[in-house]
Amino acid sequence: MSRTGDGGPPLAIGPADIEAAAARLQGVAHRTPVLTSASADARTGARVYFKAEHLQRMGAFKFRGAFNALARFTPAQRERGVIAYSSGNHAQAIALAARLLDMPSVIVMPHDSPPPKLAATRAYQQGRPGSEVVLYDRYTEDREALGARLAAERGMTLIPPYDHPDVMAGQGTAALELIEDVGPLDLLLVCVGGGGLIAGCAVAAQALCPGIAVVGVEPEAGDDTRQSLARGEIVHIATPQTIADGAQTQHSGRLTFPVIQRRVREIVTVSDAQLVATMRFFAQRMKQVVEPTGCLAAAALLEGAVRAPGQRVGVIVSGGNVDPARYAAWLADGLG
Amino acid sequence: MSRTGDGGPPLAIGPADIEAAAARLQGVAHRTPVLTSASADARTGARVYFKAEHLQRMGAFKFRGAFNALARFTPAQRERGVIAYSSGNHAQAIALAARLLDMPSVIVMPHDSPPPKLAATRAYQQGRPGSEVVLYDRYTEDREALGARLAAERGMTLIPPYDHPDVMAGQGTAALELIEDVGPLDLLLVCVGGGGLIAGCAVAAQALCPGIAVVGVEPEAGDDTRQSLARGEIVHIATPQTIADGAQTQHSGRLTFPVIQRRVREIVTVSDAQLVATMRFFAQRMKQVVEPTGCLAAAALLEGAVRAPGQRVGVIVSGGNVDPARYAAWLADGLG
Repeated sequence: MSRTGDGGPPLAIGPADIEAAAARLQGVAHRTPVLTSASADARTGARVYFKAEHLQRMGAFKFRGAFNALARFTPAQRERGVIAYSSGNHAQAIALAARLLDMPSVIVMPHDSPPPKLAATRAYQQGRPGSEVVLYDRYTEDREALGARLAAERGMTLIPPYDHPDVMAGQGTAALELIEDVGPLDLLLVCVGGGGLIAGCAVAAQALCPGIAVVGVEPEAGDDTRQSLARGEIVHIATPQTIADGAQTQHSGRLTFPVIQRRVREIVTVSDAQLVATMRFFAQRMKQVVEPTGCLAAAALLEGAVRAPGQRVGVIVSGGNVDPARYAAWLADGLG
Repeated sequence: MSRTGDGGPPLAIGPADIEAAAARLQGVAHRTPVLTSASADARTGARVYFKAEHLQRMGAFKFRGAFNALARFTPAQRERGVIAYSSGNHAQAIALAARLLDMPSVIVMPHDSPPPKLAATRAYQQGRPGSEVVLYDRYTEDREALGARLAAERGMTLIPPYDHPDVMAGQGTAALELIEDVGPLDLLLVCVGGGGLIAGCAVAAQALCPGIAVVGVEPEAGDDTRQSLARGEIVHIATPQTIADGAQTQHSGRLTFPVIQRRVREIVTVSDAQLVATMRFFAQRMKQVVEPTGCLAAAALLEGAVRAPGQRVGVIVSGGNVDPARYAAWLADGLG
């Protein structure tokens, strides 16, 4: 059965999956606020609605997809638990979702991860037998192989950070809530790493507002998805050098890319300097702490990569987890 | 007619003044959100409701009192306009309120004010004939005398930053909204500079929840109001050295102090180091940029000056206007 409604081959998710995810997340995920800013509107000529996922549980939209995926585990899967590899927000999202669903979690993280991230992940796991952080050397070990081996040995279910239908559907609830709260939009801007967020959001948005343009935003240094759209197939790049650490992906997913091809109008890019300018805008004008990756979509609009005068524009602010010392340096000195 | 309801001499404001101010501010001031934090609740054992006045127009609660005062001007007063002296949030609040009410404003500011503050104030005045920033030398000139002379020469009405019934009543709408939104509270924590905010909030809170304890928070270095309560009369101190620049007042007001005496249970103090710790808590855990003065009330609870396990606690977060370089230094290095 086609889930596209436009005659193409079936996509990994459809609007009903996002509705079902929203029901699962009800009362568990925060229904994050929508922020507005007279400064942002004056600067862009648009009416801008910022969906504040930096105020989501654990500080990023990732909780939505993680919880939705784990909530669909069978009783047998739940008993054995979940495994994930991530150095970023996905790790904490899985650890928190597992805790809430009372299942063990194993998180595979680089041995040189920032201590606060290790501590936060372990704090979510505390007191749950079978839960642990497994460290690996990212210069000598292959985390995918390690993850697969641990999953097989322990009978745990591996949940990848983006290329999974339940993860994608969960992320789409961010756009669903935004449009439910503010009404129809002309344009929706979403950051792109592996494509889970934009895939879910595009499906949700177009189901609610058929005419909406969904535009993805990548860091200039890591425009693999833009290249992939141009080429018509998934392009792999070297790990990009960018402060947007949540978008340092090397390629979009086998499940996310077809959705992006069909549902996303275009991908634009922004520079790290534009991300810093946007971090400052959020801090000074809106009093919000937003991580670099969380600034991608807003930067495209505020810094002029996308112009939308007179339009109603949604912007997904994806997360706010940032090292205080690095954040302080960006506020004070720019890119240095 | 007594406005106290408890037999004492009449106070400058009563609950009806705050209700009237709320009606004037409807649709003009933001009804700021109430933020909650699982981390704050876990740390304090209380259920904490943060009233987010750093998200108010111009970034601080001061807009409430300024607009309420100017909205009550007679047509003749409105034609001549308003004058205010302030190096802080009151200046911008008066300039913005005057712009919205289409009246001229003269703001007397120190000649060495931070350029962004001068620019922001002038931006609000732009295009309104008769509006200007008047600079004075704070080492050689008396701003009160200068303000009084300009007011007399130009027929303008001077609005002081706190010791004015309409200003006090306007500030009280912050507590009114908070309690309307979250229900009865056991304890309300409010920062204290000249006392306009806490006076208005205490009157509003006790009208809505008769049993509520209202506690004021001053910087350790500037505890004039605590001293005044102990002495039973207004104590004047030298300008205190504290990073909480909005609470660098030398004494509470003739109108605010009697309200504080009657309606506030006690005043506690916090150190600058505790303010920095609280700024970091807001940034890391709640992704909010809060200025030092805005952290006073929260610091009292989070850093343990006030303990309220099991209670429902309101905290007024008064503002978010902070120089990015200084803020960055506090996040990165502490008090240095």
